[in-house]
Amino acid sequence: MNLKLVSRLLGMISWLIGLTMAFSLPAAWPGVGGQEAFEVRGFGALVTSIVVCLLVGIMVRYLGRKASETLFRKEAMAIVGLSWVLATILGAMPYYLAEVKFRADSTGTPTPMGVAESLFESQSGFSTTGATVLTNIENEAWVPRCLLFWRSSTHFLGGLGIIVLFVAVLGQGSAGKALMRAEMPGPSKEGSHERMQHTALIFAAIYCGLNLALAIILRLEGMNWFEAICHAFGTMATGGFSTLDSSLGGFQSKAIEYTVIVFMILAGTNFTLMYLTLLGKPMQLLKDTEWRVYVGIILASTALIMAFGIWVSNDFNAGGLLTQSEHYETAFRDGLFQAVALITTTGFGTADFDRWNHFSRALLIVLMFVGGCAGSTGGGMKVIRHILFVKILRREVEHSFHPTVVRHIRLGGEPIVDPDLARNILLYFGLVSLIFTLSTQLLVGIEPDSTWVISGQPVSNKLIDSASAVASTLNNIGPGVGIVGSTQNYAAFTAPSKLLFTFLMMLGRLELFAVLVLLIPSFWRER
Amino acid sequence: MNLKLVSRLLGMISWLIGLTMAFSLPAAWPGVGGQEAFEVRGFGALVTSIVVCLLVGIMVRYLGRKASETLFRKEAMAIVGLSWVLATILGAMPYYLAEVKFRADSTGTPTPMGVAESLFESQSGFSTTGATVLTNIENEAWVPRCLLFWRSSTHFLGGLGIIVLFVAVLGQGSAGKALMRAEMPGPSKEGSHERMQHTALIFAAIYCGLNLALAIILRLEGMNWFEAICHAFGTMATGGFSTLDSSLGGFQSKAIEYTVIVFMILAGTNFTLMYLTLLGKPMQLLKDTEWRVYVGIILASTALIMAFGIWVSNDFNAGGLLTQSEHYETAFRDGLFQAVALITTTGFGTADFDRWNHFSRALLIVLMFVGGCAGSTGGGMKVIRHILFVKILRREVEHSFHPTVVRHIRLGGEPIVDPDLARNILLYFGLVSLIFTLSTQLLVGIEPDSTWVISGQPVSNKLIDSASAVASTLNNIGPGVGIVGSTQNYAAFTAPSKLLFTFLMMLGRLELFAVLVLLIPSFWRER
Repeated sequence: MNLKLVSRLLGMISWLIGLTMAFSLPAAWPGVGGQEAFEVRGFGALVTSIVVCLLVGIMVRYLGRKASETLFRKEAMAIVGLSWVLATILGAMPYYLAEVKFRADSTGTPTPMGVAESLFESQSGFSTTGATVLTNIENEAWVPRCLLFWRSSTHFLGGLGIIVLFVAVLGQGSAGKALMRAEMPGPSKEGSHERMQHTALIFAAIYCGLNLALAIILRLEGMNWFEAICHAFGTMATGGFSTLDSSLGGFQSKAIEYTVIVFMILAGTNFTLMYLTLLGKPMQLLKDTEWRVYVGIILASTALIMAFGIWVSNDFNAGGLLTQSEHYETAFRDGLFQAVALITTTGFGTADFDRWNHFSRALLIVLMFVGGCAGSTGGGMKVIRHILFVKILRREVEHSFHPTVVRHIRLGGEPIVDPDLARNILLYFGLVSLIFTLSTQLLVGIEPDSTWVISGQPVSNKLIDSASAVASTLNNIGPGVGIVGSTQNYAAFTAPSKLLFTFLMMLGRLELFAVLVLLIPSFWRER
Repeated sequence: MNLKLVSRLLGMISWLIGLTMAFSLPAAWPGVGGQEAFEVRGFGALVTSIVVCLLVGIMVRYLGRKASETLFRKEAMAIVGLSWVLATILGAMPYYLAEVKFRADSTGTPTPMGVAESLFESQSGFSTTGATVLTNIENEAWVPRCLLFWRSSTHFLGGLGIIVLFVAVLGQGSAGKALMRAEMPGPSKEGSHERMQHTALIFAAIYCGLNLALAIILRLEGMNWFEAICHAFGTMATGGFSTLDSSLGGFQSKAIEYTVIVFMILAGTNFTLMYLTLLGKPMQLLKDTEWRVYVGIILASTALIMAFGIWVSNDFNAGGLLTQSEHYETAFRDGLFQAVALITTTGFGTADFDRWNHFSRALLIVLMFVGGCAGSTGGGMKVIRHILFVKILRREVEHSFHPTVVRHIRLGGEPIVDPDLARNILLYFGLVSLIFTLSTQLLVGIEPDSTWVISGQPVSNKLIDSASAVASTLNNIGPGVGIVGSTQNYAAFTAPSKLLFTFLMMLGRLELFAVLVLLIPSFWRER
């Protein structure tokens, strides 16, 4: 292990975080986020954190001053995993130093965020999960506006990191190539170093451009600049942090909701396809198997949620005040919004889907495991893995009565000639199942029943709520059902559970392997 | 597809079912099952069913009169799948014809079993699941005792079928060999036809011997012969049908409970190991990796259930009436019994584990997916698959940073040289996850919320109850949690849901493939 090289690159990450923090400083001035006075404590916490980032950067770069340039697979994995750990710790500092209040204790006194809460919120931002422990973000005395801006900035940085990481690391290797769509003459197919840098730059430019475009549109639709930028960051990174306690639904604007739906769908689309569309080849989008399935799942889920919500249950017209056309429009908008918010792993809320019928709730939990397209900022397992999974299962079942016939999996008509493909895809599903099961069991064990009693719900929800919280953090979504439902948050959990969630968010965001290898002793021992 | 040969062998299955039914006829006589009068309707239903079995047997054998003897892999799979379908239908006839009452309708009138209920109960018996729709089995006016005996007989026949099937079909092929334990010099390692028949006969003899031994012991411990035989069938087949509404707990006998624990553990043990023990090599049992993990999981689960039930919750001493030693003994006995009942997929009940703490309940749901050892009558996914699964995951994660190193999975020190092993094991886990998820979603959709309201529980349990019902039937256990908890049953579900469960029980019992291939058109089309 070339630890010196690892160290040098970690120094750059540290400086990048400090630099991004500096952009949150102006948000401390009166009026920027709607606040009346200059936010002394938030500003001070940010400045201190920036200084620490610079010092840490200098220190670790000094440790790696004599590094050789050879970057092996192991070093790359270590850099990815460790830089995420470092970012989480540095990003948590401002919350902790500014003593941000996250909830009221039993006597009604606001409690400041501890180490676990700060790490959770920081990881939730960088991993673009959007799960929060904050219960009262509109109150400046609890949460300085400049820290709310920092919180959304971590989404932006996390989304950018994932896009670049996908080009540099995840899109390589035999499984990665399948995820990068072997059948497509995309810009990322060639493996050369320059080509890779070029692709990463283009993807970063598309990402920044979409952030800017969305911020301007949201500004025109009635948000102020502070809200518009924060929500653009939350949308394009498929994060989900909002500036209102009631999330995006608080703006009560159909225009904003439909706009965010469109941009969430874009954020969950493979950036290669968006690049091809910009090059004047929009048909590639419609020809792409993954994108078609992705849109198909969204439409089918919306139709099912509408059907069950209108005819089986009465989910969208509870007061009975809507006309029939208003009823259908609400069902369409709410159903589509939540389906898109969960499949893309954004997690914004416009309707309390916990009050919907059980079929729709179960469907939304299943959607949590689908995820966006490969090469997007969307988290989760990714649509392409599900497509390959189903194709592999079908082939293998046929194989059981036709053992001599060897067939390659086809995607968009082209065969994928990769002997490891089936094993890699099945392995991924196996790991997700195992981590999901063990984490849920662990969470049920370490979290006392009293957590549920406080939230005013029957304890009988503990198992399903715990499972949904694990699914939501592992897949980088944000909300789950019940205690972590769309109008709830993670404040009620104990510190050990919050640390478990922090780990799960990182695990999910880095597609498991880059984190799991860090836990294997031989990874560090051997050359 | 050599359909004639398939047809001829199905005729034999039909006759075998009819023959077994004949053994239930004596149970209709007054006094045999404790009843006062001769059970005319039950006897008539059985006689009619026996005649139908004979006629069906003659008919399908006539269709296959000119069959060639060549048995290919496809024919073998078709015979396994179709004979199970045929057995289920024939076995359901007595319930339907005798108009067995399964529950009271809203006005209190007893309702006779319909087609769905009869098929469910028959499949539950043959698949050794032990899930029931009957709510009042101790009432002879509702359920004739001779049909209760037939119900338990289906367990015996199903368990025997699985043992023979394992030797003949499941233990063959590359994945099967790993399940048959390549490292062990067992009698089933060689593939020759005579050797196979010999092994099947020995296994059947062990199975019958254990049934007999257990029946005698239970008789000595206070049961009458009717109860003793029925419970021996239920235990050794890892089925779980009882003759009391309160299951085995109704006998209030510690001796019976400990006896059944021992025999359930034996029923979940690989029959090869039992054979070696009989040959005077008991150390093979302790040396066997799967058996050690199997016993280890049982002991660890019991310890966790005891710890949480005694110190975190108060699950075993609710009234506070027990002395400390009684409290510990109850915790040990109840915890061990339920852990063994669920891991072996027997599903007998002695304690209402739905009242236990949520950690223990979640643990029991996880145990449902573990299953017994390969080559036992136990259902579920089997311990060996989990061992290989964990070893494969560990190897593959190491593989991600050491792509050039090729390591074989080792079991008991010996490497398993099989290129398809990883893919086959991962495939199995993938299929189980997919079937579990889709079936739960489907069940939540087709079953109305009112099913839960009737049972007096809050509807918030619907998701977890549905998931547990699917897990329980797919893994051939019997009880789940909530509406299908240890003191509940499947009566409340609508007919479509019961048919879904019937399908899942068959799918789980035949280890997925033999059923799934029947649904693929090309299986029937091609030669």
